[in-house]
Amino acid sequence: MKNSALSQLAHRTSEPAISWLMKLTLDHPKLVSLAAGFTDNESLPLKETRELLDTVLSSPRRGRPALQYGSTTGDPLLRELTAAHTQSEDAQRSARVYDPARTIITGGSQQLLYMTAEALCDPGDIVLVEDPTYFVFLGITASHGLRCRGIRLAHDGIDLAHLEDVLGELKRSGGLRRVKMLYLVSYFQNPTGRTTSFAKKQAALELLRQYERAAGHPIFLLEDAAYRELRFAGEDERSALATDFADRVIYTGTYSKPFATGARVGFGILPEPVFTAVSRIKGNHDFGTSNLLQQLLSRALESGAYERHLPVLRQRYAAKATRMVNAIRKHFPPKVKWDDPRGGLYVWAQLPPRMKSGVKSKLFQTALKRDVLYVPGELCYCDDAARRTPNREMRLSFGGANDNEIPIGIARLGKVIEEATVKSNRP
Amino acid sequence: MKNSALSQLAHRTSEPAISWLMKLTLDHPKLVSLAAGFTDNESLPLKETRELLDTVLSSPRRGRPALQYGSTTGDPLLRELTAAHTQSEDAQRSARVYDPARTIITGGSQQLLYMTAEALCDPGDIVLVEDPTYFVFLGITASHGLRCRGIRLAHDGIDLAHLEDVLGELKRSGGLRRVKMLYLVSYFQNPTGRTTSFAKKQAALELLRQYERAAGHPIFLLEDAAYRELRFAGEDERSALATDFADRVIYTGTYSKPFATGARVGFGILPEPVFTAVSRIKGNHDFGTSNLLQQLLSRALESGAYERHLPVLRQRYAAKATRMVNAIRKHFPPKVKWDDPRGGLYVWAQLPPRMKSGVKSKLFQTALKRDVLYVPGELCYCDDAARRTPNREMRLSFGGANDNEIPIGIARLGKVIEEATVKSNRP
Repeated sequence: MKNSALSQLAHRTSEPAISWLMKLTLDHPKLVSLAAGFTDNESLPLKETRELLDTVLSSPRRGRPALQYGSTTGDPLLRELTAAHTQSEDAQRSARVYDPARTIITGGSQQLLYMTAEALCDPGDIVLVEDPTYFVFLGITASHGLRCRGIRLAHDGIDLAHLEDVLGELKRSGGLRRVKMLYLVSYFQNPTGRTTSFAKKQAALELLRQYERAAGHPIFLLEDAAYRELRFAGEDERSALATDFADRVIYTGTYSKPFATGARVGFGILPEPVFTAVSRIKGNHDFGTSNLLQQLLSRALESGAYERHLPVLRQRYAAKATRMVNAIRKHFPPKVKWDDPRGGLYVWAQLPPRMKSGVKSKLFQTALKRDVLYVPGELCYCDDAARRTPNREMRLSFGGANDNEIPIGIARLGKVIEEATVKSNRP
Repeated sequence: MKNSALSQLAHRTSEPAISWLMKLTLDHPKLVSLAAGFTDNESLPLKETRELLDTVLSSPRRGRPALQYGSTTGDPLLRELTAAHTQSEDAQRSARVYDPARTIITGGSQQLLYMTAEALCDPGDIVLVEDPTYFVFLGITASHGLRCRGIRLAHDGIDLAHLEDVLGELKRSGGLRRVKMLYLVSYFQNPTGRTTSFAKKQAALELLRQYERAAGHPIFLLEDAAYRELRFAGEDERSALATDFADRVIYTGTYSKPFATGARVGFGILPEPVFTAVSRIKGNHDFGTSNLLQQLLSRALESGAYERHLPVLRQRYAAKATRMVNAIRKHFPPKVKWDDPRGGLYVWAQLPPRMKSGVKSKLFQTALKRDVLYVPGELCYCDDAARRTPNREMRLSFGGANDNEIPIGIARLGKVIEEATVKSNRP
């Protein structure tokens, strides 16, 4: 009888990997964590946030609304600034898509991901995801009883031929009717650091549109741009909102990564009927994100403090990424492969064939004993019977670890990999 | 094809009453709203919040964690302070129930209500609610496809005989197996302003326990103490956590009503297996409430600023309540009945028999034309085929309206009721 009061959703919701990774960190006080997806502590805008909040709260005109309830979809000014900010990033002239009336302010972009799954998906529905993808999103899909199909990821985003194969196969098997969306972390992806080109987004949307008739309903692209502004090399790609298919694009971004992380303000720009559905759902979740935080972000955007902070941040992450890559070059055996990051928080490293990086692997356990933690790649792959779950990658974050820790952590990890390589090469 | 991409949950989620009431307010610029559940603007702690945030952000030791990600269940210090605060309100010696390890920090208490419904209930399950109850909670139950049964509300809380009748009837009909919880807004209830006595909570829990065997699983009491600290007359009642059945009590409170409303920080104290289920669900919702807001509340509680603010607030609400009640005495026809509020934000007024107050009633529409808005009582009743939905009550809030607006709004409303009374008395 003990647990039977719980819902099916509760039974499907397992302890998030992020929780036990955090717990491991607390249990090993000397641990260098290259696992946490934290932002860089040193560049957090303490002074700016303090001044902005002081401005907000020093006048009753601004301060009272900041300390009062607001509306479910968000503060009108912040919705306006957010729509305009995204339009300017996309360098688009027409404001039609970048409309405050289609914009909703959320508790981080995570809440938007959750509510989108609620709005679109019933248990048994299918979501297409990058293979690998953001592991907390996989927690959401599991919790709601959704099935995932992984779409192979090339260096410039998903493999379109594979997307077409999977859609075709689902059409033949009758599964297409259950396909509700394709989820892409399109900028400096978590976990791989890869960016989907604009051309690929356009092509993916074209493909989805072709299959809509057979699906019997729209198939949406959920574009998660959480890392977009953490770019320190290369040019920005336009978002899927700038394609010809904006009526199928659910775009989400966040102010947490590029500015005051602990404020946890995110947003979505959504087409109908998703906007209305998500807004109503948010009415039940919390009927609106903290107005105090929204006023903080409005002031940050309006005053230019936000834009001024970005170059500081980018320089800082560029330096930390370089530090990590240099350490990898120095300490990892030459057979380990990785991409040089151009933004975001992560290096995705692939071990030589036959080596394993998973939670139960010798490598992971040894690394933990030597006080270094990474995110095992296997956690980032959905359950998909069409392939074996890859088990020789690791996500290495240069966000949370400080300048000293990065080379120490990488050196420790390099030694563990080196030892494992020697063993696996033994005749 | 238009909407069929949406989930069943989305189809069940209708526009919250709160949204269109707000919209009416915006569409009628001269309107006096006695409908909004806002807190009092003048007593919002602007100065205190400004100083507390300044303290938090002026040192990297406090400021960096405030601007960084945290853990899903909340900041350890705030969990500790929250558990201790609740224990002290309940004047209990044993800290066993008031354990930080059972305490979770949420985005307002609303988020806790939502996640509790997710953790316990499948579509078709039954929730027992006060009749009438908090209407946004009814939005949550509808959204999740839950059925509600209304338990009659006396002046000191639910009618225990009716609770027993309903449980007995559900047992006979086989419905008991679907009953997951009883939801009580136990202090200065929204919408009636009534408080459930401690003895009634204890007795209700005893009754629920008797029916558990037949139900086949635990039946929880979800105690929503959102208005507990807005008490300006009488003594505090202990919470259900102080009964002998704390392992069946899901307690939720909020810092939004008594302190910085716009911060929207709430909390829950939960028994297993609900604590674990809700914590995991929160991992998917947002993996933790804003640390900046949590640090603000920790500082407010730690420094005594929170406790110092309460008497200010209580005096202010007492004065506004008196203002409203005096205006009602002066302007409402003698046949209208109401309770003098002893806390919270609301006066619940009952019109004479045969008069209607509902959204479609002449009274509501005339009131709107005369620029005064109330919450029609009918919105606060669940769908329950066992009785007709009452339709002659109104929720009048003295929280959001200012000192001038309260008598003006009541005078306008009084005139509308007076005219309707004359008409309905015509032979």
